Amino acid sequence: MEYVTGIQKKETVEIRTILESGCNNQVVKVNGMVHTIRDMSEFAFIVLRKYDGLVQCVFTKGSFEFDLKTIKEGSTVEVEGVVAKEERAPHGFEIRLLNIRILSQPVMDAMLPLPIAKWKMKTSLETKVALRPISLRNVRERAIFKLQEGIVRGFRDFLYSEHFTEIRTPKIVAGNAEGGANVFKLEYFGKKAFLAQSPQTYKQTMVGVYDRVFEIGPVFRAEKHNTTRHLNEYTSVDFEMGYIDSFEEIMEMEQQMLQHTFAFLKEEYANELRILGVELPDIAQIPQVRFDRAKELVAKKYERRIKNPYDLEPEEEQLIGRYFKEEYGSDFVFVTHYPAKKRPFYTMDDPENKKFTLSFDLLYKGMEVTTGGQRIHDYHELVAKMEGKGMDIADFEHYLSIFKYGMPPHGGLGLGLERLTMKLLDEVNVRETAMFPRDVTRLEP
Amino acid sequence: MEYVTGIQKKETVEIRTILESGCNNQVVKVNGMVHTIRDMSEFAFIVLRKYDGLVQCVFTKGSFEFDLKTIKEGSTVEVEGVVAKEERAPHGFEIRLLNIRILSQPVMDAMLPLPIAKWKMKTSLETKVALRPISLRNVRERAIFKLQEGIVRGFRDFLYSEHFTEIRTPKIVAGNAEGGANVFKLEYFGKKAFLAQSPQTYKQTMVGVYDRVFEIGPVFRAEKHNTTRHLNEYTSVDFEMGYIDSFEEIMEMEQQMLQHTFAFLKEEYANELRILGVELPDIAQIPQVRFDRAKELVAKKYERRIKNPYDLEPEEEQLIGRYFKEEYGSDFVFVTHYPAKKRPFYTMDDPENKKFTLSFDLLYKGMEVTTGGQRIHDYHELVAKMEGKGMDIADFEHYLSIFKYGMPPHGGLGLGLERLTMKLLDEVNVRETAMFPRDVTRLEP
Repeated sequence: MEYVTGIQKKETVEIRTILESGCNNQVVKVNGMVHTIRDMSEFAFIVLRKYDGLVQCVFTKGSFEFDLKTIKEGSTVEVEGVVAKEERAPHGFEIRLLNIRILSQPVMDAMLPLPIAKWKMKTSLETKVALRPISLRNVRERAIFKLQEGIVRGFRDFLYSEHFTEIRTPKIVAGNAEGGANVFKLEYFGKKAFLAQSPQTYKQTMVGVYDRVFEIGPVFRAEKHNTTRHLNEYTSVDFEMGYIDSFEEIMEMEQQMLQHTFAFLKEEYANELRILGVELPDIAQIPQVRFDRAKELVAKKYERRIKNPYDLEPEEEQLIGRYFKEEYGSDFVFVTHYPAKKRPFYTMDDPENKKFTLSFDLLYKGMEVTTGGQRIHDYHELVAKMEGKGMDIADFEHYLSIFKYGMPPHGGLGLGLERLTMKLLDEVNVRETAMFPRDVTRLEP
Repeated sequence: MEYVTGIQKKETVEIRTILESGCNNQVVKVNGMVHTIRDMSEFAFIVLRKYDGLVQCVFTKGSFEFDLKTIKEGSTVEVEGVVAKEERAPHGFEIRLLNIRILSQPVMDAMLPLPIAKWKMKTSLETKVALRPISLRNVRERAIFKLQEGIVRGFRDFLYSEHFTEIRTPKIVAGNAEGGANVFKLEYFGKKAFLAQSPQTYKQTMVGVYDRVFEIGPVFRAEKHNTTRHLNEYTSVDFEMGYIDSFEEIMEMEQQMLQHTFAFLKEEYANELRILGVELPDIAQIPQVRFDRAKELVAKKYERRIKNPYDLEPEEEQLIGRYFKEEYGSDFVFVTHYPAKKRPFYTMDDPENKKFTLSFDLLYKGMEVTTGGQRIHDYHELVAKMEGKGMDIADFEHYLSIFKYGMPPHGGLGLGLERLTMKLLDEVNVRETAMFPRDVTRLEP
């Protein structure tokens, strides 16, 4: 009998292995995709692209049998050669080739549609997104999504350490918890179904099981407006925690999560931060301001009239961000006590003034990246609120059952991963930080 | 200005904190949901359920002002009391109460529909699933999904250590890569769209970017048959790796991933393994057998006639599992070289016999839990194969572009998380290990 034993004998090495060994004249095998070829007549530089960086190889013509014309950008190869220190090369070393083995070839007469080997492609967002399968091969572009991986890892590490349990909730659902018309419909074996706009009812359900839960997964919003800050499918970072004494505990938890994550990026994703020129924000403390107070502050400082005391226009959001940057040097601000009208049915009203709620948004550089708050946990109170909003409680039988049989005081939040990444990178369009963005006109690639 | 500083001053402690402190007469505060109340006339046992276990509290009547009738199962409370060793109590300690503060109440006259406080509820799967929001509160039931969290963590830990990059690919897609009719359709702003049956084309695309990638997320299959092993939405663990020398490298990687994960569970999820009575399988080595050979072995030993040499019936799959258990003591077996007819277009044919492919399934206790293999990486070969299958290559423009501009030899796999969990727990229905299962008749809860 043949067995799979899990013992791999890969001869090729990674960049980090070469660096750790000191780069001193040892012979190594390396694989990668041809990034650029520079023919210098007597010799040629063949730069390989690997997941963790570029490797400069030097081919001295005639040193072994090989025709440079047999490879081009996009060929994948395994090379063998001697490692030598070379300050001008990426990572400070080059490989002087002894052999090249071609592993695969692109279509030889196909011309790359984008200059992916350049540091900045100077291409429109539209073109980059339309050609994502290729534009992501650019070193700077791919660093964006590597960094995004790091953000998610940082969040998860933190949440595990705080005893949150990771859950996976269904994306095909029967109900529409967030309300509104922005929901994708589908037919499900003869029944009407929806794509989940958020894991809201499920994550609350699971607080009754694990006390603290989180999910990082796709959510779907059929928003018809094409803006620089909306996606129709995005990654939502959701957590929900039981046994809270106030909704402020949720903000405290988020602030710690962000602190932990930025420290984690500094430690583990320094390469991507450098490539992208990202300066991590200082968030030792985040200012906290009431919704109505924030409106007043902005109206006064920037001489704006308050049109509607119960709503926040995008421009006002930007100005609140600007205000707290100018006055307190903070990129972040927690805006609390949003009007009850503007929050979903499950939001807990402020007992001191029922026009407002025990809720918050986190603004980052003037844009909402998180919405959160305390939820109603009392069955009768929740039913009354739903009936007041004209909802049919029969549609929420399963959800209501958790309150019927007991739920601790709890609350949580949802954070948009692409928006947070966008603001961290100072991008102006959320499509820059969505791997394969979905918007009103875009279903491919 | 008020600030959020992330410094939480929670006074309540966790079970592990109490255990670490030695349980010796200190006064603690603990919160939790009332699990059971046993009234012994002079005193009462109030057992609290927390995310990490049960806590026995002893209320001596008259010791402080409190009426036992004001709480019931499902009430949430914060108690204060003295910790004392007590061998017969969960975790070996109890809390002798000094005070009880009620945090929230269920509907006081609502009767729990399930005996969730029992060790085994002895309830039908149908009832358990229909009442998931409540049945998951059972200590044994919730351990299943805690363990599932551990499996995912083990996978991710391993894949990061092997330099895989985590990706997030769209679930609303324009094409139907896996072929077949089992795809959910939806309308997307006037265009026809689908729910992704797998991240196949996207994960291959991202191999061109990061060399090795993985995604753990939902996939959607509109299968019309209601079986014990199918779900219409499930969690797929997908990885894809470039620069492979043979498809066997993928099996080696999977075997290592499973080894790592089982070791991780043993270390970090011992409590859940104990609750569920799970014995982790030994997978130092996994037998590997060709598809045609496996059919012969089973036909001979179990006296079955081979009806169709190019297909595998579910019963044959079970018998292959049985054969390798009986003959080699292994719960796992890799079946390789599946017939080309039965594999999707992107599968690489075996150059030695084009009727078969460089592909595999991993069977676990007689059920397929993984499908994988090497993919075609040459543009012209892929186009020829697609045309041979009557596919319209214009529908795959973006996908084909990655091959046009160069792709390394690569392959990967998809593993069904719920099926793996099911087999690990010796369950007979995959719904047991899906938190909120979706099947032909089930869209709620």
